[in-house]
Amino acid sequence: MKIYADNAATTKMSRTAIEAMLPYMSEIYGNPSSLHSEGQAAAEALSDARERIAKRLGCTAREIIFTSGGSEADNQAIITAAKMGEKKGKKHIVSTAFEHHAVLHALEALEKQGFEVTLLDIHDNGIVTADDVKNAIRPDTCLVTVMYANNEIGTVQPIGEIGAVCREAGVLFHTDAVQAAGHLEIDVIKENIDMLSLSAHKFHGPKGIGVLYAKKGIILQNLIYGGAQERGKRAGTENIPAIMGMAAAFDEACDKIEANSAKLCKLRDRLIEGLLSIPHSILNGDAEKRLPGNVNVCFEGIEGESLLLLLDDKGVAASSGSACTSGSLDPSHVLLALGRPHEVAHGSLRLSLCEENTAEEVEYIIEAVRDVVSLLRGMSPVWRDLESGKKEFILK
Amino acid sequence: MKIYADNAATTKMSRTAIEAMLPYMSEIYGNPSSLHSEGQAAAEALSDARERIAKRLGCTAREIIFTSGGSEADNQAIITAAKMGEKKGKKHIVSTAFEHHAVLHALEALEKQGFEVTLLDIHDNGIVTADDVKNAIRPDTCLVTVMYANNEIGTVQPIGEIGAVCREAGVLFHTDAVQAAGHLEIDVIKENIDMLSLSAHKFHGPKGIGVLYAKKGIILQNLIYGGAQERGKRAGTENIPAIMGMAAAFDEACDKIEANSAKLCKLRDRLIEGLLSIPHSILNGDAEKRLPGNVNVCFEGIEGESLLLLLDDKGVAASSGSACTSGSLDPSHVLLALGRPHEVAHGSLRLSLCEENTAEEVEYIIEAVRDVVSLLRGMSPVWRDLESGKKEFILK
Repeated sequence: MKIYADNAATTKMSRTAIEAMLPYMSEIYGNPSSLHSEGQAAAEALSDARERIAKRLGCTAREIIFTSGGSEADNQAIITAAKMGEKKGKKHIVSTAFEHHAVLHALEALEKQGFEVTLLDIHDNGIVTADDVKNAIRPDTCLVTVMYANNEIGTVQPIGEIGAVCREAGVLFHTDAVQAAGHLEIDVIKENIDMLSLSAHKFHGPKGIGVLYAKKGIILQNLIYGGAQERGKRAGTENIPAIMGMAAAFDEACDKIEANSAKLCKLRDRLIEGLLSIPHSILNGDAEKRLPGNVNVCFEGIEGESLLLLLDDKGVAASSGSACTSGSLDPSHVLLALGRPHEVAHGSLRLSLCEENTAEEVEYIIEAVRDVVSLLRGMSPVWRDLESGKKEFILK
Repeated sequence: MKIYADNAATTKMSRTAIEAMLPYMSEIYGNPSSLHSEGQAAAEALSDARERIAKRLGCTAREIIFTSGGSEADNQAIITAAKMGEKKGKKHIVSTAFEHHAVLHALEALEKQGFEVTLLDIHDNGIVTADDVKNAIRPDTCLVTVMYANNEIGTVQPIGEIGAVCREAGVLFHTDAVQAAGHLEIDVIKENIDMLSLSAHKFHGPKGIGVLYAKKGIILQNLIYGGAQERGKRAGTENIPAIMGMAAAFDEACDKIEANSAKLCKLRDRLIEGLLSIPHSILNGDAEKRLPGNVNVCFEGIEGESLLLLLDDKGVAASSGSACTSGSLDPSHVLLALGRPHEVAHGSLRLSLCEENTAEEVEYIIEAVRDVVSLLRGMSPVWRDLESGKKEFILK
């Protein structure tokens, strides 16, 4: 059996998305900036895609710019807010300790330029509250950036409430919605979101394309200077095939949010139940306020990387946390922010399901994880110490 | 007849390139940062593509990073050199007046940060010499950036000679090779190139993907912070399908450089001959030191936009200059740099051929342009003044 359960890292493109791209590779391949018919056909497609995506987010087409993905969109949003703040002498930013590195590292770069960053702690359930944000906002705060849903533990943040707090305080609010877009209902107006980033390959769209929504009135700061594309705010020939693929995938995902969510929550909850029946394990993040497809569990006495490799042997593709940092030996900054001790954080497993996964697959995964955890614990000196009572269990 | 003669703006993807992409959309779709087999298969593809592209440029795989295109690569190269220079108190940059806006506007942004930029004039033939560069280099020069071939008039610069001058002076040398890559032989070692940008969609590869070559020892400055992709210098999930499409298209283009060039030079020269037989016209840029597929001619007494629209009616897709600036009413900065007066620069026509264009198409284009120029001149009050002797012809 081959089971792909790493949809938070990336997804398989849907047939619809691929078919939406193909004509723009070989037939309507003009440059949308060109005056001739071939260019204008591409320009019309671009405009159509922009309208459709805007509609799904509840904004206008003029508030959408296309980027090369979520990381670029996050960086551009943060730099934009920083430059706007700097002009008014406001150099303080509020964020959280468990943001994606595209946010955290962009903030670190700003700290080197004299900005001050407050990273909010997250609560035991993997959530920050609107009150946390409210208490952190200062007169010199120029930006609040809080992710819509966490990429590792899947917890969904109270974005509407945080948005309301920011609006009242007159502070710009950005959310990295890379994990949420296409999976949860988003409405930038109702939720008072000023800027939002998303990435197509997280909802069965193509890689290398994303969106930055920026509310009317926000003058975006360029990361890439050059041609007049994207109203001068993002240079480079527009990636029409990918944009069309993203629009199609986003429409498809948004149309199915309710049905997919119902299906996935059932699979997810059964998977969590099955995994927690393994002794000395714990669920990371709130059991309910989490993405429909996200499961993240720590097992004491084992090491995440071995767990993944043995699961891979059994045909299960999973991860220990973010794919973006898998090269690193450090434990996940998200699990540390959640208060897990190093030795527990090292034994984490993230399974992220999509609507194509089945109940049968879920049962297979549970058995596979049970076997592998048992095998690894049998070989582990740490586990022997725990079992013999030499060391005390952290997870009861 | 439908003739696409705007290959400098963008190209149709080759079958080979599309077929190289497809498996990575629906089968080998893993995130190359993931540890599981699906991820590792993608990581192997990524590594293979990097090797192949490096080999074609004459560098090592470690010296290649993938970007979202030529504009991003240009921006990152320039920012990198600027940051490196700043640390040594060197804040002077040498470039040319007819670079692509991805270079010119990135340089303008640096000027606002206290950098000084010398833009070299180009000679009547649309070329800068190594001596021009040599004379402009100062003790505080941190970068020379000169495009390999111009995107509007197609003139090929003496990159090897400029590279030698920069190497001797100990100044970093970057070249925007977006128009040249896949069309001309490039060897970054022989030509002493320290950084080079290229874009796949200019050689029948996909849009939204490009390369920045940076010689070993150059510590790239991030434009996009986040995950550890591209050795930490360019965050964001790697766009594997596009990278594979680019590698395939680049291999295909490089294999055919000689054959394509022979074919295209013949078509180009006949096209130039035919167009110059229209009275009061002039070729922009050197007749020989130009890209095999590039033709750029000015016609006195007409307006470029009308020319394009009427040619489009006849099925010919052409441009007046760069697609990236087509929204602007200003005449081309390249033609102004070449010394064309405004009224002549406004009547420019760029035809950029690819190896799929035919001799028959070239004859059709010549007749179409002749008809359209004649029609437009017949309606033009300026032309009436010129013909009646009220005004003097600029182009004899």
